[in-house]
Amino acid sequence: MSVTSDLTVPQGGILSLSATQASAAIHAGELTSEDLVSACLDRIALREDAVQAWAWIDPDAALAQARALDRERPRSWLHGIPVGIKDVIDTCDMPTGYGSPIYQGHRPVADAACVAQIRELGGVILGKTVSTEFATRHPNKTRNPHRLTQTPGGSSSGSGAAVADFMVPLALGTQTSSSVIRPAAYCGVVGYKPGFGLINRAGLKFLAESLDTIGVLSRTVTDAGMLAALLSGLPVEAATFRAGKAPRIGLCRTPWWSEASPSVQQSLMQCAERFRAAGATVGEIELPSEFAELNEVQIRLSSYEFFRALTYERTRHPAKISDSLTRRIAAGGQVTRESYEAAVVTMKRCQHWMSGVMPGYELLMAPSAPSEAPDISGTGEPTFGLMWTLLQMPCMTLPCGLGQAGLPVGVQLISSCGNDLGLYRDAAWAESVLSGR
Amino acid sequence: MSVTSDLTVPQGGILSLSATQASAAIHAGELTSEDLVSACLDRIALREDAVQAWAWIDPDAALAQARALDRERPRSWLHGIPVGIKDVIDTCDMPTGYGSPIYQGHRPVADAACVAQIRELGGVILGKTVSTEFATRHPNKTRNPHRLTQTPGGSSSGSGAAVADFMVPLALGTQTSSSVIRPAAYCGVVGYKPGFGLINRAGLKFLAESLDTIGVLSRTVTDAGMLAALLSGLPVEAATFRAGKAPRIGLCRTPWWSEASPSVQQSLMQCAERFRAAGATVGEIELPSEFAELNEVQIRLSSYEFFRALTYERTRHPAKISDSLTRRIAAGGQVTRESYEAAVVTMKRCQHWMSGVMPGYELLMAPSAPSEAPDISGTGEPTFGLMWTLLQMPCMTLPCGLGQAGLPVGVQLISSCGNDLGLYRDAAWAESVLSGR
Repeated sequence: MSVTSDLTVPQGGILSLSATQASAAIHAGELTSEDLVSACLDRIALREDAVQAWAWIDPDAALAQARALDRERPRSWLHGIPVGIKDVIDTCDMPTGYGSPIYQGHRPVADAACVAQIRELGGVILGKTVSTEFATRHPNKTRNPHRLTQTPGGSSSGSGAAVADFMVPLALGTQTSSSVIRPAAYCGVVGYKPGFGLINRAGLKFLAESLDTIGVLSRTVTDAGMLAALLSGLPVEAATFRAGKAPRIGLCRTPWWSEASPSVQQSLMQCAERFRAAGATVGEIELPSEFAELNEVQIRLSSYEFFRALTYERTRHPAKISDSLTRRIAAGGQVTRESYEAAVVTMKRCQHWMSGVMPGYELLMAPSAPSEAPDISGTGEPTFGLMWTLLQMPCMTLPCGLGQAGLPVGVQLISSCGNDLGLYRDAAWAESVLSGR
Repeated sequence: MSVTSDLTVPQGGILSLSATQASAAIHAGELTSEDLVSACLDRIALREDAVQAWAWIDPDAALAQARALDRERPRSWLHGIPVGIKDVIDTCDMPTGYGSPIYQGHRPVADAACVAQIRELGGVILGKTVSTEFATRHPNKTRNPHRLTQTPGGSSSGSGAAVADFMVPLALGTQTSSSVIRPAAYCGVVGYKPGFGLINRAGLKFLAESLDTIGVLSRTVTDAGMLAALLSGLPVEAATFRAGKAPRIGLCRTPWWSEASPSVQQSLMQCAERFRAAGATVGEIELPSEFAELNEVQIRLSSYEFFRALTYERTRHPAKISDSLTRRIAAGGQVTRESYEAAVVTMKRCQHWMSGVMPGYELLMAPSAPSEAPDISGTGEPTFGLMWTLLQMPCMTLPCGLGQAGLPVGVQLISSCGNDLGLYRDAAWAESVLSGR
C-alpha cells in the first residue's frame, strides 16, 4: 500500500496563495493578475502532461485578460483571479465540448451567465476544465494529481484535479448526483454544491434540469463561498467566513453507511471527535426508513430527464455516446411519467421532513464518497451525493486527511435549504478545527 | 368600434382540420403529410405579409421533411403534423434569433430537447415563430390576425398568430409571466401552460429559470394535451380528452379583478353561467390577502433572474437591447438575494395554501388577460398570468367568444400542480360547453 503522493505542494510563493489571499495582494498593489496567471500557467506547463485537467487552455489569451485587468482599478474580490470553467458551461471565446466527441471544437455563441458574471466581476477565465461525458459517470482523460493511476472523480474531474494541483485557485463544477463533492473529496480540496438554484444556469448544458447545480471547487471555504456569494448576490459583507461559536452538528451515517470503506467510516468518526473536542455538540440523526429509497429515487428522476435532455444526441449521434451512458439513457426511456411523479412526491416528503429536523442543527455531517479515489477505469460511486442533491440542500466537502490508501478523504457538511451563508460560517469553523489553526 | 375580423376562417378543407383530425386522416391513409404541409405553406404565402408570424420558414425544407415521413409507417399521433417552434427554442437546421438583433442569423449546434423529441415522434418542424425580445414584453413584428392594427400578445406572438390564422395547427410557446396564455387569448386560440417542468427545457434560451415553462398553442384542447403528453410521457391512453362529468369549479376573480375590462369581466361571468347551466358547480374562491402581493413577487423574482441570465447580453451588447428591457434588467440588478429569497418564501406559502384548497375543486377559472388585444405599440399586460406561473399550476385558456371590441376573449382554466391530465379532461368538458357541441 502506497502512502506517497505524486503531488508536490508548492511551499510559499504565488501558487500557495488562496484566491482570498491573492485578492488581498492585488488590492494592495503587491501582486498583479499577470504574475498570478503566469504562475498558474507555469504550473500547468509543468504538470498538465501528467494530470490532464484541461480541455482547453490558451496561455496568451489568459495573459491578455490579466494584463487588461491590471490596468483597471479592482472591480471586486474576484478582480484578476483566474478561474477554471468546467467544459459543460458555455464560453464564447473558447471551445466547449460538453465532455463528448459530438461537440468536439464546438464554439458557443455566448457565455453562460456565470461565465459572463465572472468576467464582469473582473475574474480571468483561465480555461476549460475536463468534464466526463455530458457530466455523467463515463471517465475522461484526467488523473488524480495525488496518484496518477487513480481517478480524480467525476464529473467535475478537471476542476477537482486543477485546483488540487495548484494550477488554479478556483474552478466551477456542476453536480447532478455527486459531481462536485466526489471529485473534491478524491482530490483533497474544498467542493461546494450550493442549495438548488443559487448560481444561475443559463448556458449550462443540461443533463437533469431539476437537479443540475453549478458549484465551486477551491482550496478554502472562504474562496468557494466568496465566488458563489458574488454570483448570487448573497451579502458578501455578511459572509465573513469567520469561525463563530461551535455549531450543533447532526452526524448522519445515511442509509448507505455500510457501503463506506472502513477508512471513510473511521475518518468521519474521527472528524466528529475533533469537532466535539473543539466544543461542538454532535448528535446522531436517524432518518426515517423512506430515506433509504432516495438513491433509487434520484436515479429514477435523473434518468427520466437524461432521456429527454439528450434526445438530440441519442437520435442524431448514437454511435458517439459511450455504452454506459447509452444504457443509462435507455433505462430513462423506460421510466413512466407516473413513476417520475412518484419520485418527486417522495423527494418533497423527505425535503419536508428535513426542514422539520434541521432547526435542531446548524450542520449535518456525512461521508463525501464511499472510499478513497479508485483507479482511472471509472470515476467512483455517487453514493453519498445523490440524496443531498435530491434534497436540494447546500453541501460542502472539506479535506480531512489521508485514508488507509494514502489518498485524500473528505467530510461532507450539509446545511438547511436557503442557508448557504450559514454553511460558509460553520464550514469555516470546521476548516479551522481540521487544519488545527 | 369595429366588429369585423381580418381573419377569414377556412371553411372545410385541410386547413380546417385540428391536429388530431389530421393525424387520424394520416393514419387512415386518407391524407399525406405533404398535402397538409403544402396547405399550411399556401396559407402562409397568402397571409404572412399581413400577419408576420414567422421568424424563419423554408418551404422546401418543410416539404422534404413531410415527404420523408410519408414514406414511413406513422410513428405516433404527431406523425406528419407540422409544428411551429417559438424562436427562443434551439433548432439545429434553422436560425434561432431569440427575438433579439444580438442573435440574428444564429445557428445553434443542436436541437432543443423538445424539438428533437418532436422530430423523433414524426412531427414536421415547419419553421420558427416570432418571439418578442428574449420572450419579454418588447414587441416584435407580428400582428393579430383578427385585426392587423392590434397586437397578437406576447411573448409567444408568432405562435399565437400562426395557429389563429390557420397557418399551422400546433406551435410551441413559452411562458415566464403570461406569454402563452395572453397571446392565445388575444388570438382566440387554445393556450396551454403546463405545470412547471412538464416539458423538458434543455435548449431553451433562459430568461428566468425558476419560471420559464414551455407550452403549446393549438385550436383544440386535445391537440395541446396530446403534444404535451407525448413529450412528457403522460399516458396518452389516459388522456382521452373526453368530457367527463361536470367539474366542481372555483371562480377566482384574483386580486386584479378591477384591472379587467368590463368586457372581460362580463365574459368570465357568462362563462361561469354556461358552466353552471351545463351541470358544473361554480363557487367563488376567496384568496388570502397575501395573494395580492404575488404579481409584485413574480416580477421581483423574475427580474433578479433576468439580470443574471442576460449577463452576456447586457455586458457585451447593451446597445442592442431595447430600452424597456434595459430598464427591467437594471431593476433586477437592484433586487438583493435577501429580497429574492423572501419572494421564494411567499411563493411557497401561497403554493401550500393552494394545495390545501384545490382538493375542493377540479378546476379554477379566471381571466386570461385584462382586455381584448390592445394596439401593436405593446404586447398587452401580463396581469392575469403572473400569479399562476409563480404558483407552477397547469393552466389553459380557451376562447369564449368576442368582446365589446369584436376581438377574442379567453377564459383561463387552472388545475392543481401535478394534475395536467385532469386539466385536459376538464378543459375538454369546458370546450364542449363553450362550443355548444
